[in-house]
Amino acid sequence: MSILKAAIIGGGSIADQNHIPALKTLSDQVEVTAICSRDLSKAKALADKHDIPFAFNDAAKMYASGGRPDIVVNCTANNLHHPFTIQALENGCHVFCEKPPAMNGQQAREMAAMAAHKGKILSYNFQLRQTEEYALLKKCLSNGELGKVYHIKANFLRRRGIPGWGNFTNKSIQGGGALIDLGVHILDLALGILDYQIPDRIVANTYDFIGKAGGKGLMGDWDPEKFEVEDACFAHLSFSDNASISLSSSFALNTKMQKNVNLEVFGTRAGALLNPFTIYTEFAGELTNMEFPHLEETDIQLKNTAAFLDACTGKQSNICNAEQGAVLQEIVERIYQSAQQ
Amino acid sequence: MSILKAAIIGGGSIADQNHIPALKTLSDQVEVTAICSRDLSKAKALADKHDIPFAFNDAAKMYASGGRPDIVVNCTANNLHHPFTIQALENGCHVFCEKPPAMNGQQAREMAAMAAHKGKILSYNFQLRQTEEYALLKKCLSNGELGKVYHIKANFLRRRGIPGWGNFTNKSIQGGGALIDLGVHILDLALGILDYQIPDRIVANTYDFIGKAGGKGLMGDWDPEKFEVEDACFAHLSFSDNASISLSSSFALNTKMQKNVNLEVFGTRAGALLNPFTIYTEFAGELTNMEFPHLEETDIQLKNTAAFLDACTGKQSNICNAEQGAVLQEIVERIYQSAQQ
Amino acid sequence: MSILKAAIIGGGSIADQNHIPALKTLSDQVEVTAICSRDLSKAKALADKHDIPFAFNDAAKMYASGGRPDIVVNCTANNLHHPFTIQALENGCHVFCEKPPAMNGQQAREMAAMAAHKGKILSYNFQLRQTEEYALLKKCLSNGELGKVYHIKANFLRRRGIPGWGNFTNKSIQGGGALIDLGVHILDLALGILDYQIPDRIVANTYDFIGKAGGKGLMGDWDPEKFEVEDACFAHLSFSDNASISLSSSFALNTKMQKNVNLEVFGTRAGALLNPFTIYTEFAGELTNMEFPHLEETDIQLKNTAAFLDACTGKQSNICNAEQGAVLQEIVERIYQSAQQ
Amino acid sequence: MSILKAAIIGGGSIADQNHIPALKTLSDQVEVTAICSRDLSKAKALADKHDIPFAFNDAAKMYASGGRPDIVVNCTANNLHHPFTIQALENGCHVFCEKPPAMNGQQAREMAAMAAHKGKILSYNFQLRQTEEYALLKKCLSNGELGKVYHIKANFLRRRGIPGWGNFTNKSIQGGGALIDLGVHILDLALGILDYQIPDRIVANTYDFIGKAGGKGLMGDWDPEKFEVEDACFAHLSFSDNASISLSSSFALNTKMQKNVNLEVFGTRAGALLNPFTIYTEFAGELTNMEFPHLEETDIQLKNTAAFLDACTGKQSNICNAEQGAVLQEIVERIYQSAQQ
Amino acid sequence: MSILKAAIIGGGSIADQNHIPALKTLSDQVEVTAICSRDLSKAKALADKHDIPFAFNDAAKMYASGGRPDIVVNCTANNLHHPFTIQALENGCHVFCEKPPAMNGQQAREMAAMAAHKGKILSYNFQLRQTEEYALLKKCLSNGELGKVYHIKANFLRRRGIPGWGNFTNKSIQGGGALIDLGVHILDLALGILDYQIPDRIVANTYDFIGKAGGKGLMGDWDPEKFEVEDACFAHLSFSDNASISLSSSFALNTKMQKNVNLEVFGTRAGALLNPFTIYTEFAGELTNMEFPHLEETDIQLKNTAAFLDACTGKQSNICNAEQGAVLQEIVERIYQSAQQ
Amino acid sequence: MSILKAAIIGGGSIADQNHIPALKTLSDQVEVTAICSRDLSKAKALADKHDIPFAFNDAAKMYASGGRPDIVVNCTANNLHHPFTIQALENGCHVFCEKPPAMNGQQAREMAAMAAHKGKILSYNFQLRQTEEYALLKKCLSNGELGKVYHIKANFLRRRGIPGWGNFTNKSIQGGGALIDLGVHILDLALGILDYQIPDRIVANTYDFIGKAGGKGLMGDWDPEKFEVEDACFAHLSFSDNASISLSSSFALNTKMQKNVNLEVFGTRAGALLNPFTIYTEFAGELTNMEFPHLEETDIQLKNTAAFLDACTGKQSNICNAEQGAVLQEIVERIYQSAQQ
Repeated sequence: MSILKAAIIGGGSIADQNHIPALKTLSDQVEVTAICSRDLSKAKALADKHDIPFAFNDAAKMYASGGRPDIVVNCTANNLHHPFTIQALENGCHVFCEKPPAMNGQQAREMAAMAAHKGKILSYNFQLRQTEEYALLKKCLSNGELGKVYHIKANFLRRRGIPGWGNFTNKSIQGGGALIDLGVHILDLALGILDYQIPDRIVANTYDFIGKAGGKGLMGDWDPEKFEVEDACFAHLSFSDNASISLSSSFALNTKMQKNVNLEVFGTRAGALLNPFTIYTEFAGELTNMEFPHLEETDIQLKNTAAFLDACTGKQSNICNAEQGAVLQEIVERIYQSAQQ
Repeated sequence: MSILKAAIIGGGSIADQNHIPALKTLSDQVEVTAICSRDLSKAKALADKHDIPFAFNDAAKMYASGGRPDIVVNCTANNLHHPFTIQALENGCHVFCEKPPAMNGQQAREMAAMAAHKGKILSYNFQLRQTEEYALLKKCLSNGELGKVYHIKANFLRRRGIPGWGNFTNKSIQGGGALIDLGVHILDLALGILDYQIPDRIVANTYDFIGKAGGKGLMGDWDPEKFEVEDACFAHLSFSDNASISLSSSFALNTKMQKNVNLEVFGTRAGALLNPFTIYTEFAGELTNMEFPHLEETDIQLKNTAAFLDACTGKQSNICNAEQGAVLQEIVERIYQSAQQ
Repeated sequence: MSILKAAIIGGGSIADQNHIPALKTLSDQVEVTAICSRDLSKAKALADKHDIPFAFNDAAKMYASGGRPDIVVNCTANNLHHPFTIQALENGCHVFCEKPPAMNGQQAREMAAMAAHKGKILSYNFQLRQTEEYALLKKCLSNGELGKVYHIKANFLRRRGIPGWGNFTNKSIQGGGALIDLGVHILDLALGILDYQIPDRIVANTYDFIGKAGGKGLMGDWDPEKFEVEDACFAHLSFSDNASISLSSSFALNTKMQKNVNLEVFGTRAGALLNPFTIYTEFAGELTNMEFPHLEETDIQLKNTAAFLDACTGKQSNICNAEQGAVLQEIVERIYQSAQQ
Repeated sequence: MSILKAAIIGGGSIADQNHIPALKTLSDQVEVTAICSRDLSKAKALADKHDIPFAFNDAAKMYASGGRPDIVVNCTANNLHHPFTIQALENGCHVFCEKPPAMNGQQAREMAAMAAHKGKILSYNFQLRQTEEYALLKKCLSNGELGKVYHIKANFLRRRGIPGWGNFTNKSIQGGGALIDLGVHILDLALGILDYQIPDRIVANTYDFIGKAGGKGLMGDWDPEKFEVEDACFAHLSFSDNASISLSSSFALNTKMQKNVNLEVFGTRAGALLNPFTIYTEFAGELTNMEFPHLEETDIQLKNTAAFLDACTGKQSNICNAEQGAVLQEIVERIYQSAQQ
Repeated sequence: MSILKAAIIGGGSIADQNHIPALKTLSDQVEVTAICSRDLSKAKALADKHDIPFAFNDAAKMYASGGRPDIVVNCTANNLHHPFTIQALENGCHVFCEKPPAMNGQQAREMAAMAAHKGKILSYNFQLRQTEEYALLKKCLSNGELGKVYHIKANFLRRRGIPGWGNFTNKSIQGGGALIDLGVHILDLALGILDYQIPDRIVANTYDFIGKAGGKGLMGDWDPEKFEVEDACFAHLSFSDNASISLSSSFALNTKMQKNVNLEVFGTRAGALLNPFTIYTEFAGELTNMEFPHLEETDIQLKNTAAFLDACTGKQSNICNAEQGAVLQEIVERIYQSAQQ
Repeated sequence: MSILKAAIIGGGSIADQNHIPALKTLSDQVEVTAICSRDLSKAKALADKHDIPFAFNDAAKMYASGGRPDIVVNCTANNLHHPFTIQALENGCHVFCEKPPAMNGQQAREMAAMAAHKGKILSYNFQLRQTEEYALLKKCLSNGELGKVYHIKANFLRRRGIPGWGNFTNKSIQGGGALIDLGVHILDLALGILDYQIPDRIVANTYDFIGKAGGKGLMGDWDPEKFEVEDACFAHLSFSDNASISLSSSFALNTKMQKNVNLEVFGTRAGALLNPFTIYTEFAGELTNMEFPHLEETDIQLKNTAAFLDACTGKQSNICNAEQGAVLQEIVERIYQSAQQ
């Protein structure tokens, strides 16, 4: 198998600490040939650090420079996911784009359409799909152990986790707050259980009280004056087959745990908790709680990057694809719309 | 203060084990003078057991017999709450009616209207209001310790708690299942935090998979063939001030705890968990969890009956009144309607 | 169904506190018509206390007095199990005999032969068979959930539980110590898992160090001078199908728990722990521990007595029968023989 | 003191990770001068990594090359323990041989005889003797705190620990499975408590159900087709002074803990648990559990290697000597023979 | 042995619930023949309830009435301990007096002198001496297991335990607060370890902040306006042999536990904690914590009353005698004096 | 801001591992220019290791060499704190001196007087002031959350923590044992709560039983023959405003925990525990325990060094100053004097 050439767009920490190390580890399949950042010195510094041959401050130049990459990893800010992904697809590259897919449903649909048009892989980096626990949950589901799943409680809650760095509180760059940054991860997991159906009814509420009031931060200090997004979002999604999701996400909430990322899945034969993975069901006519004490932690970024490469080379892969990304982004948009009513 | 005369309508266990003992304990304020049950032998047996002077098998006869009671305690099945309450009010009695208020919103509104018309107290026996924990929650709220409450998670969940006795699975008698029997308790508590506002948006789903499939029971065995109601109900309520409630109730659900009755309350200054009562807030610039290890258990039926008597004698009382009952019943009806969509 | 007549032989606490109350509770099936004890005053006192019509100090007189019982419950000391059981069977009665079956294998075989000859039920009161946990274990076994069971660790251990009363340390009355008094219970459970096979190899050791040295007692004080039996017994049983049992029992042992009664069952598909009931197996390709938090405690004496009555009236019953008793007693004898080598 | 010269035979991970680092740490007493492996490149790689002057692919060449080592560390596969140890002793070297001593009792006896003949130290690397807990157990024993020890339960159990690498499932190389690889460690500890007596009676059973069926592995994946050894072994050993050992070992067993290595020791004055070290006894007339929360972990390989060097230089040492190794190996052989019956 | 006659003085709950039931249980040694209370109806009611032949409202009348009791149990308020005890001794009775001995050292010395003069037993009801834990502590001490004890931390702390009934906050009746009511118990235990020596140096502080401020009560509500005593007392006692006690007692203190009654005893060979009883020492050269999980709870009032009867009949007894009472009371007085400085 | 020049006096591990690394981390404010040790080779080795330009074996030479340091860090033994601090102040340097301040009160007062005379900062390295927990305690105090603090229990206890190295048991070098080495830390914290008042009454006892008897060490082995200091000290301090401190410190004590460093602070409005930081108070009329689960660990040496630099540059600082050091040292001296009585 020939080695794929990958280019990175965006010089932030997600490139530096997640994507480039994962790609480097998979050096038998891929090599990183270029990095592109608006700030050329940043691009060069990363190129030096990770032994990447070329650094650019303009993606167009990169494509023009010859040596077109097979793969583009889009590590830019949310509002740049759409333009840089479209551009990369137009240049004939597979794209591995950071989450969320885009700023709104329209952008995500355009991105999916372009990928289909070009016959290229577009996928989004929802790496929580790769935990041992979620893999086991999906296996139980496909084995029929859960029966039909009819309700899911999906939480990604932080007590005081408004990041004190980056653009996380800037609406025009991020497109939103806790939902679009955190909730999307757990919404992706929940939708994965329900065959990525489109809900027919949504009601939601968003809040920004704590973000705008300020207070103790556990992920650095934020500026309440510049807090433009929701710090918490609660939504109920109902599907045409009568399944439902109760989705909660927060940057800041007066709750116990510093961080609570979990799914509770209720099926006709059994229920499941994601973390720690547990099944609640009947066995030999009695109620049982099944624990799995020997599951191991895995490098989920590495597994997700490998899954993307599998997709690029035509193999079976469990990565979030372009169509799923469009469905998810449209749901996010509808949640925000509902919260405006 | 003169002693009030109370009559009991309905000869089931709720009369025998809850209401009559509470009234007997409050013998300085009230005496039970009559008991009425369709089954006269049942009425007589209870009269004997509890030293009640008169037993009837027809409420009309009771009212006609002279010695009109001041108070009627309506312990009948859900579908009889409306007729016997209306009749008692028409006969000039205060009424202490079991929950839920009625079969639907229209009935509850008629009951409230009749109580207003007659100038009598009508209240519903939502005795969970009387725990030390809820009293403390309300005190914290009125002291401003929680700030404005904007979201509540309210749960009344049983793992396998479909009662194997009574009419709990009969829709025409009960009006519904987990929501109308269990969920109403915790909905009452949640509405009590939000000033008993009327929600402007509701989306809900109900299920009956486990009830209809049958299985292990932890409250006796039920007959899946006769299971006509929902075994689980999940709803999201949104209010005009943007507050919201996520309400979950179940008779049967594949979950861990045998019984889980709780509120999580999220306010701008603090959050609170009802059981065990805990506050999550900032103190001296740091995040704190406040525990209250010395709260005592109380006899909540006794306290609720005493609160009803206070209302009858014109005192301040925290009981669920006729208007609140009508609001709650209408919400229940709207939840069921949403779940039909 | 006609009511069976039962006579009790033996006036000790096992009659007073276990058998008579259980029989009384089952008054729709059985009535206790006579009690017989060497000490007539003891017999009369129990007859008074439990409303039993007749009291005797000689079983022969009882059988001669007319009104032959249908059932005899043999609550005598171990060395009298054989004569009173044989006598009762000869008199045409079903016999419910306390454990252990007898003093040695020969006696137990004679008892079984007489029961067969007379066509009567003879069973032994191994009531630990009736726990919810053992019932569930047997159900898992028959469902095939455990696969083939090949090894069992069976323990009935007390740290300092040499009874300070009765004849527990008297060899000529009891026939032995920890094994014949305690170990038989758990041996019965283990044999029940292995189809009550007869082992082909046994090696065992018995000890009496602590019993003869004396020390702190947790079940009263015993007299080390009169300690004639084993305080601990460890044995390995190997069966012709290569299954094996490791059996440990003690009255006194320098170990942690005051009392430890348990089975660990190792099968090809799953293992099981009896208390708290847990299954260790694979599920969906991962290792799981299955807990059963909602099992309830039951009145095991009542269930065992009811099972005996079922047997007497020709119904399916899970009680220890005469043949099983003979197998078990023979194994006990072989264990003692091995320990003498 | 002059520095001893050591040669390593066998280039596997036990040499690389255990023996060579321990010898290097003890550089004031010993230097590693040569390494020998059938695969010369392996020998050279290890020599490079650990700064060892000479590498050989043939032990005979090594001995012939001049610079005879004082010490040979035999890190070969089980079936080579005998030939390479005999050869080393013949060449006048002390030998530190990996466990188990040999493939059978005959080999181990020959090795002990040769060591005696040559006046050289031969010892086996049972490093679990060197834990703080075992040292304390032995001290309590020699102080008389336990009285006479009469029964020991010795366990080395893994739930799913069939190694997915090496020759652990190959009978002709390993000589057996769970017993010869794991059980020997804990048998050595138990025998050390009982003065390394020879048992007069043994009954044992071995199994291979899980190993041959396949399933989830927690130490890599194994090939059930090539599984030739026992996955579990249960044995009862009885000694002429009536002491006994119940020995359990497994590569795979449907049990709770991933790994359970422990001794329970029952003495006339006290009992002891090895991990966490606890004594159960009487004190001031009451029963006490004595815990030792401040014991420290030690580098048991380092201590065992040091103990071997002590033996080589004529000092007191607690290492497993040649005679003990022969006794142990003979017991292992008799256990396997018993299991064949 | 003839039966002793006992009279009770004082008709409060300590007589009703502690002393009379204990005396009744010991009916083979003692009978209660009279009860005396200022309030005759109270005396008569208790006489009826407990089947006591005579009731008086004046102790003098009782003594004059013939049938002089052998024993007087003084259950009066603290300020009446002295007069009623002196009177009883003058009337030739043994006296079992409630704690504290008296209002000050002078009274207690007079009481001891009168008892000595009359040759009668006077003892004080410090029943905490009778726990299994304290008995074991004393046994370890006398066995030499602790070596010489040189420091004791003695605590009797309540978080919010100002009694809402009785005279506990009235200084002229009680003589003080937390120290004289609660601290005396644990001081008695500590002095019992140090041979009831007299300290040569004392420094102490008392406080009444919470008592005078009011607040939440866990033993009923108290009136801060009438709070005249200390709510907390901290003292350091140093003895001529250099031993020392750190004594803390409180009715109210902002601390974690609702009630904390304990001793920590530091000796040269071992330390001990009273509850749960634990010894900290060296064993076999290592540090051990010795726990005693099988100690049983005992009826300490019954044991203390029996110990008093033993003393009255000339038997060995571990009860607090008149001289010890005088030492203890003098220490209490000196603590209060130190706190005034 | 110009960079301060610092010189280190004393070449022990406290210099090597605490002070020099902290100063290096603060390289934007300070540079280490010289190190001085009686043993020149030690000085040079540290200079090499930490890149310090100059090494001396005589402080006088250092001052004479030109390039006078702005700051001297006095890391010498206790008995040299006074002379080297006085010398440094005379040479116009700020001094950061290790704890305890000196050998006695007179020395500490002279040091404070010299610092005042020279207008230089002298402070002592009580770095426990810098924990998040103590900062929060002080904040609660200044916010009035605790009300007036009236009693403090201050403990620095080790079970067997007599250091097996250094001069810790040498009285002429150290000036004492557990109190002067460990107790001073927690005394400093307690005095910091009480505005560093001077107590008017002190009673204390010191012991050396375990130190002189020898035994198991958890911080190396010590020589009981050379044990000249106290192994435990218990003191009660009473202040003119009636506040009090109960202070306990030990190198060796027969107690449970290996190390127990804590404050319990009792105030009129609330109490506090330092580790884990908890507040005990009333809230909304109920008793609450406030926990702070999200406090972070900090580098307390770094913070204390930074605080010293702040003081040197005229900024607000919470470091222990010369006057506080003198008060503390005088209290230590009075405790030792009291223990001699």
